[in-house]
Amino acid sequence: MRQSNLLATTLREAPAEAETVNHQLLLRAGYIRQLAAGIYTYLPLGRRVLRKIETIVREEMDAAGAQEMLMPSMQPAELWKASERYEVYGKELMKLSDRHDREFVLGPTHEEVITSLVRGEVSSYRKLPITVYQVQTKFRDERRPRSGLMRGREFLMKDAYSFDTRWEGLDETYSRMYKAYQRIFDRCGLVYRAVQADAGAIGGEGETHEFMAISGIGEDTIAVCSACDYAANLEQAEVHAEAEAEAVQRNASTLPAAEKFHTPGIRTVDQLEQELQIEPEQVIKTLIYQGGGKIFAVLVRGDHEVNEVKVRNYIGASEIALADSKTVQAAAFVESGFVGPVGLTLTLLADQAVAAMSEGITGAGERDFHLRHVVPGRDFTLEHVADFRTAEEGESCPVCGKGVLHFQQGIEIGHIFKLGTKYSEKLGASVLDATGQSKPMIMGCYGIGISRLLAAVAEQNNDGQGLIWPAALAPYQVHILLMSVQDEVQTAAAEALYEQLAQLGIEVLLDDRDERAGVKFKDSALMGIPVTIVVGKAAAEQKVEYMDRRSNSKEVIGITEAVSRITSGRTVEG
Amino acid sequence: MRQSNLLATTLREAPAEAETVNHQLLLRAGYIRQLAAGIYTYLPLGRRVLRKIETIVREEMDAAGAQEMLMPSMQPAELWKASERYEVYGKELMKLSDRHDREFVLGPTHEEVITSLVRGEVSSYRKLPITVYQVQTKFRDERRPRSGLMRGREFLMKDAYSFDTRWEGLDETYSRMYKAYQRIFDRCGLVYRAVQADAGAIGGEGETHEFMAISGIGEDTIAVCSACDYAANLEQAEVHAEAEAEAVQRNASTLPAAEKFHTPGIRTVDQLEQELQIEPEQVIKTLIYQGGGKIFAVLVRGDHEVNEVKVRNYIGASEIALADSKTVQAAAFVESGFVGPVGLTLTLLADQAVAAMSEGITGAGERDFHLRHVVPGRDFTLEHVADFRTAEEGESCPVCGKGVLHFQQGIEIGHIFKLGTKYSEKLGASVLDATGQSKPMIMGCYGIGISRLLAAVAEQNNDGQGLIWPAALAPYQVHILLMSVQDEVQTAAAEALYEQLAQLGIEVLLDDRDERAGVKFKDSALMGIPVTIVVGKAAAEQKVEYMDRRSNSKEVIGITEAVSRITSGRTVEG
Repeated sequence: MRQSNLLATTLREAPAEAETVNHQLLLRAGYIRQLAAGIYTYLPLGRRVLRKIETIVREEMDAAGAQEMLMPSMQPAELWKASERYEVYGKELMKLSDRHDREFVLGPTHEEVITSLVRGEVSSYRKLPITVYQVQTKFRDERRPRSGLMRGREFLMKDAYSFDTRWEGLDETYSRMYKAYQRIFDRCGLVYRAVQADAGAIGGEGETHEFMAISGIGEDTIAVCSACDYAANLEQAEVHAEAEAEAVQRNASTLPAAEKFHTPGIRTVDQLEQELQIEPEQVIKTLIYQGGGKIFAVLVRGDHEVNEVKVRNYIGASEIALADSKTVQAAAFVESGFVGPVGLTLTLLADQAVAAMSEGITGAGERDFHLRHVVPGRDFTLEHVADFRTAEEGESCPVCGKGVLHFQQGIEIGHIFKLGTKYSEKLGASVLDATGQSKPMIMGCYGIGISRLLAAVAEQNNDGQGLIWPAALAPYQVHILLMSVQDEVQTAAAEALYEQLAQLGIEVLLDDRDERAGVKFKDSALMGIPVTIVVGKAAAEQKVEYMDRRSNSKEVIGITEAVSRITSGRTVEG
Repeated sequence: MRQSNLLATTLREAPAEAETVNHQLLLRAGYIRQLAAGIYTYLPLGRRVLRKIETIVREEMDAAGAQEMLMPSMQPAELWKASERYEVYGKELMKLSDRHDREFVLGPTHEEVITSLVRGEVSSYRKLPITVYQVQTKFRDERRPRSGLMRGREFLMKDAYSFDTRWEGLDETYSRMYKAYQRIFDRCGLVYRAVQADAGAIGGEGETHEFMAISGIGEDTIAVCSACDYAANLEQAEVHAEAEAEAVQRNASTLPAAEKFHTPGIRTVDQLEQELQIEPEQVIKTLIYQGGGKIFAVLVRGDHEVNEVKVRNYIGASEIALADSKTVQAAAFVESGFVGPVGLTLTLLADQAVAAMSEGITGAGERDFHLRHVVPGRDFTLEHVADFRTAEEGESCPVCGKGVLHFQQGIEIGHIFKLGTKYSEKLGASVLDATGQSKPMIMGCYGIGISRLLAAVAEQNNDGQGLIWPAALAPYQVHILLMSVQDEVQTAAAEALYEQLAQLGIEVLLDDRDERAGVKFKDSALMGIPVTIVVGKAAAEQKVEYMDRRSNSKEVIGITEAVSRITSGRTVEG
């Protein structure tokens, strides 16, 4: 490809709304352009990278025995109502009506379509197991699209679905897909980690893992054990039950009764700590939530944070949120700074650390008053005790108990789920097993965000000058910079090298623009092609400069040597 | 691939709504399934064919110097309002609003997006010419989706766009794309023809050609000259002006005055013909149309039909339609059977054959009366005379004048347009030319219906038993039928052959199902894989049956011979 003809304009500055490095560089280097918030065009350079990722994904899916198919983006809304996800997805679901006012959604995922399809195609266990996949544009009406391709409203996904008659079969497929995902991310040159995760709106009954590209811009926090191989999304990371057991052995009869005291204007744990000279772990925070059609209270220690995912899963609601002040007032008869569990008529979910406290300080349920000597189990019920808080860095590992948890930020690039029979039961997808009994199919689903993966690779591979593509994903392998298009010797040498490499099947981009050398070097570093060959004055002696983008090394070598280095695959990834 | 594991169920009967052969066979053979009207899932077999077409299209586009990119499906409605196509497309445009009530359309085509993108990327003529393309899902809210993939609401397209500073540059790109299209359709094994066409809602100022797959189910009629290479869509086919010149030389002074006569209840040309014993070519039909904000009359000879596309283009309206009876009454003061041009106060568009008539019979503009001896130019004005009628089979060719026109039915599989500056002017996409002057870019656009092409190939390649894929598009090259899975010798031979072919890179499907031989033969013929290898009793002597799907030939040969035939590419297409 000749750069004079390439639809890719480099920009000196990224638009102000681009806050992450990958977003800035992909815009500046001419890989993508925004059409509307969260909606991007892939320019030719970006499309090439995307296609390489697609190819890697297809090869690994095919190798794992998955069959490619293609389902529609437009899905009848009835299907989503049948699976009870029409409401769960809420405003994130893009909805439209056709000219006959029939309702459709633009698929963010395809569990409904594939389950209803397989229901019609497969009636006997002998056709199973089956795993299918597709590479397809998905839609999600993000409230706040951001970080370029990271959280878009239209994006490219690989989604796969497996069907089995046996749970062990699901385990096998799940494990095969897990390994295929590792190979995909390895081939893309990503630094990543598989972590235990929450199933969210996809749901399911079994295990689920997220694949996280490690990055400071990641929206997810992952907790990793220093000793064993435990790693989990923080929203999922369990708290080691024993870590909470340090509390004094409770002997309610020897403790004084709860006592109300005056705390004018003291509404937060911080204020309590300062005004009363106490430690936050002596406080029991009471937070009023609503969700799943209920209003309820969650109790955590003053130094802990509620983990809403754990609460949501315990409650069985699709979404929960802190109650607004009006709701708090109506439910607890006091403003939120003074709410406490004693005498509260709501369901109380007590974190296991609260249950382990000998006594604590809480709101009194009365404006400007708190209670001390509040004993869990004596002064309020402990009907619902579980792990409701977010794990903290440095805590002991919930699995081995020996290591401590370290935190990293991650970008979710893949997610695999053991769905079980959630969809097959709702949509009636059953098969006759070997004994002639009708059984719901056992499903798994497996997603990779292809466009997000591109962004994650860009985020992990760059320097102050621009992008640095791994060879497997680079839009071109070699970038020839012709220093002076006016110089006949240089032009002839660059053209000959370009033709030679192209004929050898090397993807090569020739910067044949009538631009200054400085512009060409800058643009080349920005674009991030693995090998740059500078054809300048030394061309008269059949020499060129060979530059490795990743190591930033430069070397003047003969043209023949340059060709043989390139064709022997000795690029930076080699 | 093992058929026991393939997600493809063959159906004995196609659903009743499938009326065309391709639709019936693609459903029955397990290539596609309907999700909603005009919205289809591609099962693994269908996806494989689709991918092969995509690959051919990409190869030829790349070879023609086009750069692949990918634009979004969701397009801001403002862009379509800026190009004034929001209304033109009308109800066929799929519309949706996001959670912030911003309006979007789901792109049926991408002129607006690419023009506004290139406007921002290219400012100098030195970057041009550029041709870009994408392979993408498109949406169109068809009033009546039909014929399976032929006229769907969600479909796969290749669309390309070219930008130039010179009209000759557009001519060159257009010609290069024309040839690339020929190569694509040749490689897909289609019987097709390029025809002159109407630009429709895409519009533009220059030439436009449709590529038509010849087929009796085609919704388009094409007119082809028996002598020269003239071929045109019937809606575009010109009428040879001289063909109309057979009229008697008019001498208005010697003709009697127009004369009103009583024709009670006679409203149609047919009735006039029968009641008055005249020929239809003696009648002048007057049809009232509305469109482009006007009401006007079109006059054609009694034996001719109005060509609405020609009228629409003459008027410069995006759509026209016959006026309803109320409008006719209000505009012509009489019901439609008795409307005539004499005394009518509407604009009259007279077909050139009407202008050539010495005299004619028309409605009198009064209920139950007609006029005879009506002389065009004497009794009504001939301000707007042009070719307004549909050409008829057997007429002389408008180009060579020697041959006669023959009609064929065609399926539109590709369409290329010289857009000129239609979009670049409306959306302000200009470049500075070599003299520093700002000029609107000169554009072309080039579309191929990839999913429709699949259907067209299926429609042209089948027999009473099923599909017959050309090798270039077949989902697999070889179908091994293992006659008895209980027979160890047969099973071992089939498995060995399957492994051997797969290792040689041959795409092979092994029917390893526990089914009767009859079922396997039937399914295989339905699926239409070029070569079938039957592994039956002869396997004991290292022999198999080699079947060619297209010729239906069968031959018992040695397994080694079968392998060498297959690997030497001696399939039916070879």
